[in-house]
Amino acid sequence: MRISTLSIGSELICGEVIDTNAGHIAELLLGCGLRVQRHVVVGDCEQDIGEALLDLAPKNDAVIVTGGLGPTVDDVTALAAAHATGRRFVVSEELKEHLRGFSARLGGSCGFQPSDKQAMIPAKSTVIPNPTGTACGFHFIHGGCFFFFLPGVPSEMDRMLRETVVPFLHVRVTHKRVVLASFLNVFGFSEPEVDGLLAGLFSGTDAIRMSICVTFPWIRITLRAEADTEEAARTGLREAVELVRERLGDVVFAEGDETIEQVVARHFIRRNLTLALAESCTGGLIAKLLTDVPGSSAFFMEGAVTYSNAAKMRLLGVPLDILDARGAVSAECAAAMAAGVRHAAGSDLGLAVTGIAGPDGGTDDKPVGTVFISLAAPDGSWTKRFRFGNSREEIRTLTAWTALDWLRRYLIGSRPFPA
Amino acid sequence: MRISTLSIGSELICGEVIDTNAGHIAELLLGCGLRVQRHVVVGDCEQDIGEALLDLAPKNDAVIVTGGLGPTVDDVTALAAAHATGRRFVVSEELKEHLRGFSARLGGSCGFQPSDKQAMIPAKSTVIPNPTGTACGFHFIHGGCFFFFLPGVPSEMDRMLRETVVPFLHVRVTHKRVVLASFLNVFGFSEPEVDGLLAGLFSGTDAIRMSICVTFPWIRITLRAEADTEEAARTGLREAVELVRERLGDVVFAEGDETIEQVVARHFIRRNLTLALAESCTGGLIAKLLTDVPGSSAFFMEGAVTYSNAAKMRLLGVPLDILDARGAVSAECAAAMAAGVRHAAGSDLGLAVTGIAGPDGGTDDKPVGTVFISLAAPDGSWTKRFRFGNSREEIRTLTAWTALDWLRRYLIGSRPFPA
Repeated sequence: MRISTLSIGSELICGEVIDTNAGHIAELLLGCGLRVQRHVVVGDCEQDIGEALLDLAPKNDAVIVTGGLGPTVDDVTALAAAHATGRRFVVSEELKEHLRGFSARLGGSCGFQPSDKQAMIPAKSTVIPNPTGTACGFHFIHGGCFFFFLPGVPSEMDRMLRETVVPFLHVRVTHKRVVLASFLNVFGFSEPEVDGLLAGLFSGTDAIRMSICVTFPWIRITLRAEADTEEAARTGLREAVELVRERLGDVVFAEGDETIEQVVARHFIRRNLTLALAESCTGGLIAKLLTDVPGSSAFFMEGAVTYSNAAKMRLLGVPLDILDARGAVSAECAAAMAAGVRHAAGSDLGLAVTGIAGPDGGTDDKPVGTVFISLAAPDGSWTKRFRFGNSREEIRTLTAWTALDWLRRYLIGSRPFPA
Repeated sequence: MRISTLSIGSELICGEVIDTNAGHIAELLLGCGLRVQRHVVVGDCEQDIGEALLDLAPKNDAVIVTGGLGPTVDDVTALAAAHATGRRFVVSEELKEHLRGFSARLGGSCGFQPSDKQAMIPAKSTVIPNPTGTACGFHFIHGGCFFFFLPGVPSEMDRMLRETVVPFLHVRVTHKRVVLASFLNVFGFSEPEVDGLLAGLFSGTDAIRMSICVTFPWIRITLRAEADTEEAARTGLREAVELVRERLGDVVFAEGDETIEQVVARHFIRRNLTLALAESCTGGLIAKLLTDVPGSSAFFMEGAVTYSNAAKMRLLGVPLDILDARGAVSAECAAAMAAGVRHAAGSDLGLAVTGIAGPDGGTDDKPVGTVFISLAAPDGSWTKRFRFGNSREEIRTLTAWTALDWLRRYLIGSRPFPA
């Protein structure tokens, strides 16, 4: 089955808004063994939309169209579809009913006015219900191709896709194949290193497809298993995941959508330990990431963002002679910060980072990107010098991620820390 | 001139990587009065690429293709272009020279091996130099349409586009129009409010086009002026910006690409004032944003992320009886935090936030989303209760932005703070 997507919106053409619907549709359909071949984007222009629909019809069995179904003058998708396919543009009683129901539920208090325009669809098309918004979709067949029209709001689009479009297409696939996917998230190796370690792993088989995608600063490995039955796909996928994990070891910090801060939070809570942070060059980024996680107050006690030397001394008890003799960016200062914040907060672990994020402040001895990380724990303390990335943002991000990875490694007992 | 883009990459089809090149190309060309009509995306599949090229040729005067020019087996764009247009696939001496030069510059030490594949292009095409990477581009004419092939790496693509493609197209535009754009960034009004205030402003003219784009939590207003000469466009644009600024007032926090944290940093440095932060529910997010700005150490002294009550008392001197009687999420606690951190750090301004970011912790009295912001300054102090957004992320983001906007308003003398 040949499938394409068509995303409609002038803001998508100019890059003011990034289209995430097309990729999401492709990923969801892939799970049913359906491959999307092409994405097309056009602006809210009747002629451009009509041309795109007619171009796609002869080359596809199904086209999924998103966007341009709203109430404003910009929204011309339904009208363009009617004109392009020689249909009349008519009022749908079913849609009128839907809009009246929606208006009644809002109690008329939100200033919601059912728009006549949103009740109009091309003649001889079937309504696709929208349980959560005003813009219903519709579908029709033209030139042997199924066209599905969905609103551009991602959450509404997603639900209508799953509830109506996917089942519709699925019963029409003659040779059904099941495709299941797993995602392994890696931090600490570069892409060529991961590439090298996994080389040739699935070269003999078509049943497993692997892709490696850099999502700075981490790498996502996607494994897809294809088989005739769900059980076979599941078994194949499990074995593939095991093989990859065996080769990569503990640089795999998570599976699926779990983030590194969620992993760290989960381990802290499981082990019933607490944390205090002292950040200089990351300026609160590590605390921000950890407190993104709901429930982080169970383990995160406090953080000190100590940009000035005065703050390092007063809040963390860093001795003046370390600052004088070694400087604020030094192993000694990092260690004193970690021990100091741990002592002051009375936490189990104390973590500190200090470094030069740039663009200014570098020296020959300590160029921009020089960072010290230190961890103070009941059973010891560790401090290490790093040299990170290019830009301020890259240096701060890599510092925060490396610090979080230290916490993760400490909590899963995977010491000593890697070089 | 009819122009389309074609982005190539299997990772773009599946949504693993979001294509930003197409939108960027469209925005850049719009500045030269050239409108991109359609974006197309296909995977790294020779047949799909070839079909897309041949589909686009008869409908466009120019097509800008990005991606698939690298050295790996996945990269088949050049080969597909040769086959689709009936060209031989040949070694280019010019490209071989480029790759040798690149290899020599790296000193052979990075394991860089010039790939024969990257020296091959379709016959009868012209090389587009890549000053910063291995993958050169090329262009040729087929079926009356100019095809430009550029690498997918955004920074390399952008430079080659500006240096080669744009000048090439610009001399071929017969009726030259100049389009200039300005961007006004707004925080504090909702989209319908902005819509209402600006309604009808440019309805009588085609020379100014305005679009309003929500980029949570702020709104970007794009103004584009089109004219026959640069001077006319510049004058029209300046007047349009003034009109919009007049209607919106000081909710416009910046023009162009400046972020709210950059604006705040700029005003702090200009006024030679210093800041200390006390964050509870934002967990370091405000400090993170401000220290994203290079040079922020000139005004940012320290931040305390005080999740626990113990930390609020020890680091900020919040009295126990406030925590007992009013709770950690209260106007009294926020005010004590702001005054406390200002006093402890010896800074000019002290800013504090405390609230319930959820998803748990809400009560009838103080539901999730309840936030108190307090600012302590030499000439007074201000504290206000807010009720923000839905999700934890939304609440934290709105809290941080509102706090930054308070700082901005204080620094530009735009008090009292808005309701």
